[in-house]
Amino acid sequence: MTALHDPRFRAFASDNYAGIHPEILAAIGQANGGHQIAYGEDAYTARLQEVVREHFGERAEAFPVFNGTGANVTGLQSMLPRWGAVVAAATAHINTDENGAPERIGGIKILTVESPDGKLTPELVDRQAWGWGDEHRAQPLVVSITQSTELGTVYSPEEIRALADHAHERGMRLHMDGSRLSNAAAALDVPLRAITTDAGVDVLSFGGTKNGLLLGELIVVLDPAASEGLTYLRKVNMQLASKMRFLSAQFIALLSEDLWRTSAAHANTMAARLRAALEAAIADGSAPGLSFTQATDANAVFASVPAEAAARLHESFRFYDWDAEKGEVRWMCSWDTTEEDVDTFVEGIRAELAASA
Amino acid sequence: MTALHDPRFRAFASDNYAGIHPEILAAIGQANGGHQIAYGEDAYTARLQEVVREHFGERAEAFPVFNGTGANVTGLQSMLPRWGAVVAAATAHINTDENGAPERIGGIKILTVESPDGKLTPELVDRQAWGWGDEHRAQPLVVSITQSTELGTVYSPEEIRALADHAHERGMRLHMDGSRLSNAAAALDVPLRAITTDAGVDVLSFGGTKNGLLLGELIVVLDPAASEGLTYLRKVNMQLASKMRFLSAQFIALLSEDLWRTSAAHANTMAARLRAALEAAIADGSAPGLSFTQATDANAVFASVPAEAAARLHESFRFYDWDAEKGEVRWMCSWDTTEEDVDTFVEGIRAELAASA
Amino acid sequence: MTALHDPRFRAFASDNYAGIHPEILAAIGQANGGHQIAYGEDAYTARLQEVVREHFGERAEAFPVFNGTGANVTGLQSMLPRWGAVVAAATAHINTDENGAPERIGGIKILTVESPDGKLTPELVDRQAWGWGDEHRAQPLVVSITQSTELGTVYSPEEIRALADHAHERGMRLHMDGSRLSNAAAALDVPLRAITTDAGVDVLSFGGTKNGLLLGELIVVLDPAASEGLTYLRKVNMQLASKMRFLSAQFIALLSEDLWRTSAAHANTMAARLRAALEAAIADGSAPGLSFTQATDANAVFASVPAEAAARLHESFRFYDWDAEKGEVRWMCSWDTTEEDVDTFVEGIRAELAASA
Amino acid sequence: MTALHDPRFRAFASDNYAGIHPEILAAIGQANGGHQIAYGEDAYTARLQEVVREHFGERAEAFPVFNGTGANVTGLQSMLPRWGAVVAAATAHINTDENGAPERIGGIKILTVESPDGKLTPELVDRQAWGWGDEHRAQPLVVSITQSTELGTVYSPEEIRALADHAHERGMRLHMDGSRLSNAAAALDVPLRAITTDAGVDVLSFGGTKNGLLLGELIVVLDPAASEGLTYLRKVNMQLASKMRFLSAQFIALLSEDLWRTSAAHANTMAARLRAALEAAIADGSAPGLSFTQATDANAVFASVPAEAAARLHESFRFYDWDAEKGEVRWMCSWDTTEEDVDTFVEGIRAELAASA
Repeated sequence: MTALHDPRFRAFASDNYAGIHPEILAAIGQANGGHQIAYGEDAYTARLQEVVREHFGERAEAFPVFNGTGANVTGLQSMLPRWGAVVAAATAHINTDENGAPERIGGIKILTVESPDGKLTPELVDRQAWGWGDEHRAQPLVVSITQSTELGTVYSPEEIRALADHAHERGMRLHMDGSRLSNAAAALDVPLRAITTDAGVDVLSFGGTKNGLLLGELIVVLDPAASEGLTYLRKVNMQLASKMRFLSAQFIALLSEDLWRTSAAHANTMAARLRAALEAAIADGSAPGLSFTQATDANAVFASVPAEAAARLHESFRFYDWDAEKGEVRWMCSWDTTEEDVDTFVEGIRAELAASA
Repeated sequence: MTALHDPRFRAFASDNYAGIHPEILAAIGQANGGHQIAYGEDAYTARLQEVVREHFGERAEAFPVFNGTGANVTGLQSMLPRWGAVVAAATAHINTDENGAPERIGGIKILTVESPDGKLTPELVDRQAWGWGDEHRAQPLVVSITQSTELGTVYSPEEIRALADHAHERGMRLHMDGSRLSNAAAALDVPLRAITTDAGVDVLSFGGTKNGLLLGELIVVLDPAASEGLTYLRKVNMQLASKMRFLSAQFIALLSEDLWRTSAAHANTMAARLRAALEAAIADGSAPGLSFTQATDANAVFASVPAEAAARLHESFRFYDWDAEKGEVRWMCSWDTTEEDVDTFVEGIRAELAASA
Repeated sequence: MTALHDPRFRAFASDNYAGIHPEILAAIGQANGGHQIAYGEDAYTARLQEVVREHFGERAEAFPVFNGTGANVTGLQSMLPRWGAVVAAATAHINTDENGAPERIGGIKILTVESPDGKLTPELVDRQAWGWGDEHRAQPLVVSITQSTELGTVYSPEEIRALADHAHERGMRLHMDGSRLSNAAAALDVPLRAITTDAGVDVLSFGGTKNGLLLGELIVVLDPAASEGLTYLRKVNMQLASKMRFLSAQFIALLSEDLWRTSAAHANTMAARLRAALEAAIADGSAPGLSFTQATDANAVFASVPAEAAARLHESFRFYDWDAEKGEVRWMCSWDTTEEDVDTFVEGIRAELAASA
Repeated sequence: MTALHDPRFRAFASDNYAGIHPEILAAIGQANGGHQIAYGEDAYTARLQEVVREHFGERAEAFPVFNGTGANVTGLQSMLPRWGAVVAAATAHINTDENGAPERIGGIKILTVESPDGKLTPELVDRQAWGWGDEHRAQPLVVSITQSTELGTVYSPEEIRALADHAHERGMRLHMDGSRLSNAAAALDVPLRAITTDAGVDVLSFGGTKNGLLLGELIVVLDPAASEGLTYLRKVNMQLASKMRFLSAQFIALLSEDLWRTSAAHANTMAARLRAALEAAIADGSAPGLSFTQATDANAVFASVPAEAAARLHESFRFYDWDAEKGEVRWMCSWDTTEEDVDTFVEGIRAELAASA
């Protein structure tokens, strides 16, 4: 097979438009050849457990799965009885972008809370954390947060600890959708465990695909008492890879030499560069109509752009309209976004804004 | 990351113990680099549709998913209303090896029929194909067959056509679990469409993982009238890959240059070699206690072995005990099994049988 | 068996605290004796279809089920593919009081909208009615409204028609939870069809239990094109009564002689009496701290009461704390609430308010 | 409402063709009047718990639900994790007559075993009770038996105890579908607890509808350690009655004065009368072509009848064709079947058999 695509094409739509980091692809190659026992009884999955414990603590256990929805639904199911509910921000990926998989596959009710920046607080949790013992109400037994959030913001370790304590005091557990956990840890310049294990998170979805893997996510159980039956649930939920060595090898490569951090930090830096350039343009009047709608804590820039300019920008660049009504767009950087990509994009934005002004 | 395993280790347990065929791994590399639109709007998934139509006919449409259980459950769901049931052999993978995923995830009732060789016939189908219109009975609306079967046997094109006609006459549809479809087509020396599209199959799970892919299966809709909502169901069922280009590229490589056939034919040949050598050993008295329990139509050998010999053989070789009570074992060959692997295994079998006699 | 309860005990908690209307109980007795074919092939279920068509039009078809959750989930499921979602007010019973049955049993995602009075409008619907064709989003294909609402308010025929037109223009269907439809029709002084069939509702849950039945609800399909498979779904959802004659006979009695209206109108009148007496008390200063939080359109009074007074009132009267944080309570009247009951309750309220002032 | 049916019509199709026993209907009337707290916090449900403990032992707890499918699915779900499976006879109602509700609603895999008389034995259980710890296999954690069985046979206390011990030794639990438990206890002339609690049953569905109730079944938990979350599951599964007093009152009447036994014993006696008369007819040559296919242990007669005779008999009498291929029919007696009903039916059978001979 020959290449069918133009590798120069770049987009700011999602970090999963990027491909496989060369070190990850090399790891797949290293794991290839000969036979390995299927379904996780292989040398790479065994080694992965050690690597995961180094990052997340001695009690951590990792279950490789295929994608983020699979990690979230399976992880949450392992934390909940059949009558359980999850308190989450209305903007949470599990609520907005998984076509009801948590409900339909997991049998999970999501109790949503409006949040201006995609983050929960103990006060926001309390809007839905009530009614225990009432058979008519889906029982709120888990709080789920996303780090970094779907709006590009990042929880501090203290904010997560406050949520964990709040949940645990109420007999609830804390789940984290860490599809972009690496970006958050890189942004905060802390180890992964500082915003997970050490902050009281019980079960984690640790993202790989958006940070340079071919595909793969880990369900990481941080408190074994918070999760039950994951080996069975992973199979039932159609998330069990037969040639698991290739999922595990990718994560070993990602986690062993700080590749996770350098890749994520790079994406963050590119987003910061994009933001800074546009703030300068706003300041010097060359970006009429542009404003920012969220902080750029990690690798995403959320902005408001006049509709006409956004439409024309779409002709040259791929990105997401986040909230069409408000003219909000999302610009996402990835591990392979270059400074040139950013600078070209800034020029494009400025040109369209000027033309629309 | 460095290699952690001994690539000389070989097993006869399953064709998914094998790794990635070099041409498949190369295709992944070719598809890498730069950005591609996520979730299937990429150049490789577009090309895959053309390749699939070349093999399966002009109406065929392919939906890449992660694994075989995902392909089976999602494909079947797309063929059935919420009150539907599937008639299948009791030995079918969907019944025995998916931890109830069809029932739990798909909401599908499986109506099982005992079959001596893993194959259904119109007569066997009729044991469960009745009761339409009776609200108390799960409605039998799909027949599902496996090609090659879980017992290593292969349906002829005529046998499949007879099942398709029988199903269609009753308002039912025919689903095929083609996890090892390539092995069956190679064994029959026919094109893939001869035992699918041309034989009346409506929806197919086309296996890749067991035939040299890193991972990946295709749901192939052969009659669009038989399937509804697959794009949504694939997402709901957590089978939608963001970096779909890498699933599609593997299948392009598999299907474009007859790699599917050469790999499958090789596995079949190795199984035939194993069978022939053991039959010779039986004939010359050097395999006391050995007999065969199924035909070796494709890449699996099913045999009966004295318990003591099987136990000792397990110390040196990995394989499956299929039916412990009957002393039945399964020996499976894969695309990378070598003649030397087979010959070494034959020697091992003979040695343990002799020692146990 | 002898009576174990004090029939003088009265509550304002829910209309399902009341018992069976004597005419309904008599109908059960009339339907008793001898044999009738089970599961709906009986004389009463046949007659019920005629009665339902008289009320709801020639295309109407009724499916008796056990309770309101069963009617809602089964009716909605019959309107939706496996990837469907329902737009509903956040206060909807299906969202708040069914322990996730729509999600867990129906596989249905509920897309909620905040509403101040429990009613939806086309504008509110639009907050969630978007994203058709996007596989990541649960597809909004049904709007569900409650008549009268969970907050005691009543939609006018015109309001329902506007919602129906809005939904239909977008390819969506309109579902109505009519657990208290009779109260709404009585309040508006219109026939049942004026706020259902004639206003564009497609599928209805018609409540019986709260209006004097032992138990029983009807799923009424008003547009047969909007619903599929109800006979099967009712069985799958464990809502199929073997001795269906007794469900049907109750509804015949309810619907044949305007019992539905007289019972519902009486409950409404009692709520109006309660409201009027309390408004007078507010006016004359004898109800310090009391205010109303919703209109009393049907048989429920929503009020705000100082916490201390509410607590003491609970010692003598049973009612619901609706929103503990806001001090909101719900007082519900039923078909058997008497003027004396209301007057005694008003006295109690005034006494506790005065004591707390 | 006036009666619409001919109370002289009698059938031998099912015991749920019969109506409400007068004492049961009287109990409903006694429980009527005034208000009672909904959803089970009423005087009758409280008293029911005492009555149930008298019959089933001090640890027994009863959960009234609407129907048998609801009782079975909800009870089984409370005994199983999300990856659990139930070993049952292929003829079990949960497998054949609930349109997949255990699978679709309960998420339960049923592992079936062929049984000639509808009864399981430890040996039969072992055909499916294996594979614990294998993530690919639905985990067999419950054995479910039906007493009396779907084929009219009755387990002895010793047979149940053997199954309970066998299950418990393997870490499994024993569930009983006691839709006709009263018939079995009456046939054996033992108390209800002799074939439930004392025989090691863990969770029971206790049938009311087929033994003279309007409608209602009880989930009875006999070993509290075997069941979890029933209050929630009953609500989720849409089996929670608001006016629960009327379900409970019926069961109090059924259980308080041995009505359960006298009604069931009467049905059994009528079946025995039918069987005896037909055996006499066979002996004297007046029933050509008739034979029996099962023992008549309780209230059902299973027989083989020439197709022509069965067809003509259907013109005058309602009964079930059980296995059309084998010419097997089911004739069921109920609490209100009279001697005259039986004798008339015997005459009809003899006449049609003679005419067909």
